[in-house]
Amino acid sequence: MDKSVKVALDAMGGDFAPRDIVEGAVRAASGDDGIEIILVGAESLIRSELAKYDVSGLPLSIVNASQAVRDGEPPVAALRHKPDASILVAMRLVKEGQADAMISMGSTGAVMVSAIQILGKLEGVQRPTVGTSLQDLAPGTVMFDMGANSDCKPRDLFNFAIIGHAFARKIIGIEHPTVALLSNGAEEGKGNKVTKEAYQLFQKGNFNFIGNVEGDDIPKGKANVIICDGFVGNIITKFCEGLGDVLGERLQVSLEGQLAPEKISKITGELFNLTHVPDVGGGGLISGVDGVVWIGHGRSQAPQLAEAIRQARLAVETNFVRELKSELRTG
Amino acid sequence: MDKSVKVALDAMGGDFAPRDIVEGAVRAASGDDGIEIILVGAESLIRSELAKYDVSGLPLSIVNASQAVRDGEPPVAALRHKPDASILVAMRLVKEGQADAMISMGSTGAVMVSAIQILGKLEGVQRPTVGTSLQDLAPGTVMFDMGANSDCKPRDLFNFAIIGHAFARKIIGIEHPTVALLSNGAEEGKGNKVTKEAYQLFQKGNFNFIGNVEGDDIPKGKANVIICDGFVGNIITKFCEGLGDVLGERLQVSLEGQLAPEKISKITGELFNLTHVPDVGGGGLISGVDGVVWIGHGRSQAPQLAEAIRQARLAVETNFVRELKSELRTG
Repeated sequence: MDKSVKVALDAMGGDFAPRDIVEGAVRAASGDDGIEIILVGAESLIRSELAKYDVSGLPLSIVNASQAVRDGEPPVAALRHKPDASILVAMRLVKEGQADAMISMGSTGAVMVSAIQILGKLEGVQRPTVGTSLQDLAPGTVMFDMGANSDCKPRDLFNFAIIGHAFARKIIGIEHPTVALLSNGAEEGKGNKVTKEAYQLFQKGNFNFIGNVEGDDIPKGKANVIICDGFVGNIITKFCEGLGDVLGERLQVSLEGQLAPEKISKITGELFNLTHVPDVGGGGLISGVDGVVWIGHGRSQAPQLAEAIRQARLAVETNFVRELKSELRTG
Repeated sequence: MDKSVKVALDAMGGDFAPRDIVEGAVRAASGDDGIEIILVGAESLIRSELAKYDVSGLPLSIVNASQAVRDGEPPVAALRHKPDASILVAMRLVKEGQADAMISMGSTGAVMVSAIQILGKLEGVQRPTVGTSLQDLAPGTVMFDMGANSDCKPRDLFNFAIIGHAFARKIIGIEHPTVALLSNGAEEGKGNKVTKEAYQLFQKGNFNFIGNVEGDDIPKGKANVIICDGFVGNIITKFCEGLGDVLGERLQVSLEGQLAPEKISKITGELFNLTHVPDVGGGGLISGVDGVVWIGHGRSQAPQLAEAIRQARLAVETNFVRELKSELRTG
């Protein structure tokens, strides 16, 4: 089993930690598919969760971490005062080569900061970013930045494009992805100051830039890689979720009495899954740091963790970081 | 009929002009409700459209304009070279008091520029804005800016808040509207540089500021007035339309064979109406200029024109501009 992928899981991060993290870890380790899981966190808590399962012989291990960053703590201060935080311990395992990837459903800020501190940024990257595919809504489309960087320079957006391009190729498996800038009009002259300047950079990029796309082009999957700053990415993602909720409620009312309740549940459930991208996708890859780091939604439960493990593993197996380094060199 | 509201309609603007503009004008003039319509454009074309209807005795008149701005023409240059453009002629009728309001389904840029040139900006307003209610999706919520101003300063967002507040009070009829900033997090410290600075200004505003709202709060109607720059407003509006289209297609497939076709059409039609806010709402009010100017979607047909007339009329009858002037003075 030399080729197995070793994933360090932050057992203390997320709304349902450690229970659902441990459950997801057991599930992942039970599949005979060359994965090893290292649970990082309070050993006693992890052991008592593990006691619920028959884990004999499973590729599961524990690395103790005596501290944990709570969601809402200011990341930099929390990491300074908690040197043995599970996020830091897991990140160090990646740095030292004892793990191939690290996954946390905890504080996005703390994971991002510790990834930068411990793994370092890739050459040419000012600001690492978080992105992911739009899942079933537009399976061949990835968006970067999904919320990590609120204020971006044109050069940041350009880097997101290179990162998204590598992500689409390696993680989604699209050989020649199209890349677009999210804007308020399709024509070249449309945009705000930053996207208009970025447009000029994108034209010189070593990728297939197809110009601006508009908001309605996102769910229609008009480009494989759609680039925006994290302020817009966050608002779009959450708007999508909220619209899904509201439309689901209206649909429920419209269908009541016309279809059997279980059929209505199925249809509204599909609507929920289409519109709740981060819930379904398990989060996003922190890209632009020198290692594979996956940050999940705090609400993530075992199924989302499974999806996170699947994608982090893909990033390892396809040598995403090496590919990205190479693309960053050639622009 | 001294109290009737006189509306100047740009008969040449929009994808279905003059046909649908004239049809909408005839419908509006046929309702016995104290409205007078002035059709502005190529008189011969308007007359031949009017010939389709029995318009004897209707409060309809024509003011000839020998030129028209085409959609896609650079606004400033177009207006300079076409002094007799229908948009300009209609705007002058408002300026001279011969009309109480002006409505165009033509070039947003040309309408905005001519409104500023001819009517002038209200004192304290740097950038007029376009906004409207979210219609059936969130009937008690208005959003400003919906797309007119891509790059905004904190002070611009503050003015949009005053404008949106007056709009919610006068046009929507909400006595004490809540006002919020659209951001990437609910907490005060969240936002991009501009919204964080705007937050400080909003706290001093003479309105009920409830802080930041997130993307999912928009369709949920968490605030009566939601403020963002026009870049974000445009992307959100179009994303909403695109998501509605994609979900409608999926729903069609899910429901086929389970419900009668006409019931499916009804349900997908409702979904379309909920998500296509500008289509249903007929456009938005250009606010911050010294007169009532309504800009509609180029795709608008007679029903959207009727809605535009209804809202423009409300703006006249509720003295929206006078109220706004007063709110701009008190901040």
